[in-house]
Amino acid sequence: MMEETERFGTVAIVGLGLMGGSLGMALRNRGLAERILGCDSDPAALRDAERLGAVDEVQSLESAVARAGLVVLAAPVPALSGLFGQMRPHLNPDAVVTDLGSVKRPVLEAAAALGRPERFVGGHPLAGREQSGVAAAHGDLFLGRAWAVVPGPSSRADAVETVTRLARAVGADPIILSADEHDRLAADISHLPQLAAYALALAVAAGAERVGATGSGAPGGLDLARRMAGPGLRDTTRLAAGPARLWRDLALLNRDNLADGLQRLQAELAAVTQALEAGDGDALEDLFARARAVRLALVP
Amino acid sequence: MMEETERFGTVAIVGLGLMGGSLGMALRNRGLAERILGCDSDPAALRDAERLGAVDEVQSLESAVARAGLVVLAAPVPALSGLFGQMRPHLNPDAVVTDLGSVKRPVLEAAAALGRPERFVGGHPLAGREQSGVAAAHGDLFLGRAWAVVPGPSSRADAVETVTRLARAVGADPIILSADEHDRLAADISHLPQLAAYALALAVAAGAERVGATGSGAPGGLDLARRMAGPGLRDTTRLAAGPARLWRDLALLNRDNLADGLQRLQAELAAVTQALEAGDGDALEDLFARARAVRLALVP
Repeated sequence: MMEETERFGTVAIVGLGLMGGSLGMALRNRGLAERILGCDSDPAALRDAERLGAVDEVQSLESAVARAGLVVLAAPVPALSGLFGQMRPHLNPDAVVTDLGSVKRPVLEAAAALGRPERFVGGHPLAGREQSGVAAAHGDLFLGRAWAVVPGPSSRADAVETVTRLARAVGADPIILSADEHDRLAADISHLPQLAAYALALAVAAGAERVGATGSGAPGGLDLARRMAGPGLRDTTRLAAGPARLWRDLALLNRDNLADGLQRLQAELAAVTQALEAGDGDALEDLFARARAVRLALVP
Repeated sequence: MMEETERFGTVAIVGLGLMGGSLGMALRNRGLAERILGCDSDPAALRDAERLGAVDEVQSLESAVARAGLVVLAAPVPALSGLFGQMRPHLNPDAVVTDLGSVKRPVLEAAAALGRPERFVGGHPLAGREQSGVAAAHGDLFLGRAWAVVPGPSSRADAVETVTRLARAVGADPIILSADEHDRLAADISHLPQLAAYALALAVAAGAERVGATGSGAPGGLDLARRMAGPGLRDTTRLAAGPARLWRDLALLNRDNLADGLQRLQAELAAVTQALEAGDGDALEDLFARARAVRLALVP
């Protein structure tokens, strides 16, 4: 690894949750940074990050961004705008700044508050988990995952190169996209599956209420559904365990693309429902076979 | 195991695909049956089942059901009606007959053709995989899974007991349900997630077509979606790799319950879409939080 990847100097990770913590672990485990500084407004997250070995030292935001040559913002997207302004007076003038948020157009717009848009390049590792917090962090989280690298119109080429190198260094597959390309794709492959999982969980619960409960503790008829649930239901609803507030924010930040995706999903469900209600086996089989071909193309 | 579970005598498994093959392996690996006879109309399935150790010997349907004390029909549900009639003149009069199909009302109705409805008890192990065929079979497939045991109105208590014991013997959790209860639940926890996964795959493909392809082989913009796909999309669309014809048949056989489930799913998606388009963060967060609670109740 060290032959191929030049070492990073001092890296500041701002926000020590699942993503920031995992990045710290990935860099530390591989000896990829000289020094990893961690910042978080939550003292418990700082303590956990130190205890779990996600950072070398904890620091105030001001001091961390003054020292670091690479600043990675791993805070929730709605917090980034405030962080850009707060960092501005303290930022090392040569530092490259990136983020890990799952929408990019609002982030690139907010990055104007940084005063150095040419040093900012957006990033989005496609590597979530349904758990959150640094306790769920893992140094292999990014291994084999895509990492969207999203320059703004004025981003410098060397900054793009640094962020691309960061992604590759922790085992991810960097993909350079414009903010609009990214946000459309992210709506389809990340935000839409999330909302579909939430809606499916709610639909199952509404259905389970009609079937008598056996009275062993779980709410209503969900008790039977829980006992009966096989791997299919488990996988299709896994994302529904994800944090409601985070997904509310992301959904609103990518609203137009996501509304478009929801409309497409509703259209496909309507086509399936229509074929089913008409008893049209050929139409059903054709829809299912096309969907199967898509899945096999998505996950060969 | 042998202390708790009385051994089965001669068991006939009719249909040596994923489910039948896995049941044969589960019984053989644990030494639970005196003799396992396998039947299939496809000579390749018979050869594979013997080679993989899923059965002790292959047999014609007629001879297998004449010898067996327990007959397990593991053929696709639409084939069962024909099998019942074909078996009738040859069936050992004391044999208990069960099946592994994922809808139960049509199967119990078809079982009248057997001439011995009191010896028939429906069964449904909640243990699919997206692969099919005996090559995907696995002796641990039923471990920790639910196994619905579904008596008809005239099923004998000892036949119910035998099927319950079979489920428990291979490590499953038997749950006794009426056919209507079963089919409503199966629509929600198995058939609806399946159709949701198909619809989601189609919606993603329709969306990906709008984003430029990078030209590396996958159809259209799916290439980028494939590179970007994280674990969320993989899990939510995993079921879409399932066989189109099988699911067409199951969907049609459980049409009313499934149409009801699709309607509920569309209603939940409409509620999410409405909140999103209105920019109503509180409503979104409330929907997501309720869905999250459902998921945590379904998979504690």
